[in-house]
Amino acid sequence: MITALAGGVGAARFLRGLLEVREQHEVTAIVNTGDDVVLHGLHVSPDVDTVMYTLAGAVNAETGWGLAGETWTVMDALERFGGLTWFRLGDRDLATHLYRTHRLGEGATLSDVTAELARSWGLDLRVLPMTDQRVETRLDIEGEGEIGFQDYFVRRRHSVPVKAVRYAGAADATPAPGVLEAIADASCVIICPSNPILSIAPIFAVPGIEGAVAGRRADVIAVSPIVAGAALKGPADRIMTELGLESTVVGVARLYAPFTGTLVIDEADADLAGAVEAEGLHCVVTPTVMHGITEAAVLAEAVLGA
Amino acid sequence: MITALAGGVGAARFLRGLLEVREQHEVTAIVNTGDDVVLHGLHVSPDVDTVMYTLAGAVNAETGWGLAGETWTVMDALERFGGLTWFRLGDRDLATHLYRTHRLGEGATLSDVTAELARSWGLDLRVLPMTDQRVETRLDIEGEGEIGFQDYFVRRRHSVPVKAVRYAGAADATPAPGVLEAIADASCVIICPSNPILSIAPIFAVPGIEGAVAGRRADVIAVSPIVAGAALKGPADRIMTELGLESTVVGVARLYAPFTGTLVIDEADADLAGAVEAEGLHCVVTPTVMHGITEAAVLAEAVLGA
Repeated sequence: MITALAGGVGAARFLRGLLEVREQHEVTAIVNTGDDVVLHGLHVSPDVDTVMYTLAGAVNAETGWGLAGETWTVMDALERFGGLTWFRLGDRDLATHLYRTHRLGEGATLSDVTAELARSWGLDLRVLPMTDQRVETRLDIEGEGEIGFQDYFVRRRHSVPVKAVRYAGAADATPAPGVLEAIADASCVIICPSNPILSIAPIFAVPGIEGAVAGRRADVIAVSPIVAGAALKGPADRIMTELGLESTVVGVARLYAPFTGTLVIDEADADLAGAVEAEGLHCVVTPTVMHGITEAAVLAEAVLGA
Repeated sequence: MITALAGGVGAARFLRGLLEVREQHEVTAIVNTGDDVVLHGLHVSPDVDTVMYTLAGAVNAETGWGLAGETWTVMDALERFGGLTWFRLGDRDLATHLYRTHRLGEGATLSDVTAELARSWGLDLRVLPMTDQRVETRLDIEGEGEIGFQDYFVRRRHSVPVKAVRYAGAADATPAPGVLEAIADASCVIICPSNPILSIAPIFAVPGIEGAVAGRRADVIAVSPIVAGAALKGPADRIMTELGLESTVVGVARLYAPFTGTLVIDEADADLAGAVEAEGLHCVVTPTVMHGITEAAVLAEAVLGA
């Protein structure tokens, strides 16, 4: 059994490779819900959906999120009313949010709904939200104050400087059913190549998860989302710098050292392998940039081999 | 100034005729919200939307509700998840519900949102919900117990016998801003040809409205939705019978007599004009069946002439 901690696009692409080399029923994905958002009264779980859509082969391959062949009738109509359209929800994607919101309204948990959606997409891996409670990644923006994750990420295209990040509600949250067991029982725990601050840290902010992962430290393998000092996608490098961290694989190693035994870094960073090991982690150097599913599968094999 | 109490399809068709013979800014429609429903977390106001879509010339002329040229991408996708699809929401129609739900979530009232939507549709008449509070028309069904309006009307296609009707929440509701003034200040108050039990009675269930209308009794003109003992559309005749009322224009006259000075009935019921007058109302006989906008305009002119 393999357990993976996952954010959105990068994690989903890695998991797609992992499922090329392992059976779905051997894999549990614990997914960040810190960027969940309620829009128009609908509960949207972007990272959970990105993971499901990707693994179901339904994702928009170009963007890495949303559905392939999506249409935008609802959003186009919403523009007539001057409605909230900066977060564009596709027509078929909306069906996911209608279903989730309806079931939550009936008293189902986010875990229940996520399992139901995954089943509907024909998935056989376990997709677990990190928690069934509401945890909100919030960002303190220079000269503005605190804003929500999607306000930062989508509305402002993560282009404003961040002073601090907070995971509101995390202190009162508990890991979703199965999360701690999946970490304890796995032969290895993989930290996917996701934003350390915005995708992985919210998962660890849920009390109990960091301790459970740290307890498996020797079997924990992380894939660095930073390659040659830059994020492959998104603002991971900038936000690390803004928070006073080093936006290199060494910075990632320092962040992850308390609970990670091995860090997988890209060949472009081979010269930093020694510095990573100096932080007390094993270091594996291998190509980590996934242009397609073949490279993702090769990376997954390398991670499992580490 | 003319004020009309309105349900859904029948009222909307009548109002469309009225706007052929009167300016929009002279008209206020007070619309039933007893069949409002929360679906997938979205606030749906079917009668308000039917009135707006119809008056904006955007309604599906065949069904009398929903939008012309509508698509069903979201509902079709929702079927994958086994989601709630018995109440089918079209793609462009969904934009209305997303907007309404978002604005209500921001703290706007249903009156605010309705005015904003009406403006977006280019309407110049005032469309007022009967109340800004939640009032729910609920039906006690033989052998089943109480169910919600849409469960009765859409899901069971109004084909189950009704023992009683209740307007839950009405006792604690107050008329929406402008409702009592629109009734007091109008030169005439029209009760549109809508279901007396399911569309008009919920409006009167809001404390203050019946008194206000009764105070204008001499200037109140109702159009019977019952023609030759049958409803032109929907279950008005059946439900009146099930509740022990006479499903004829005389039954309507008895229901409306406390607050209505004049009842407009169809030529098919000309022989019952005397019986209507015996209930203490003036009776006007005229063609009331609206096959198109021309007949609706002629009917509106007849009502205003009465």
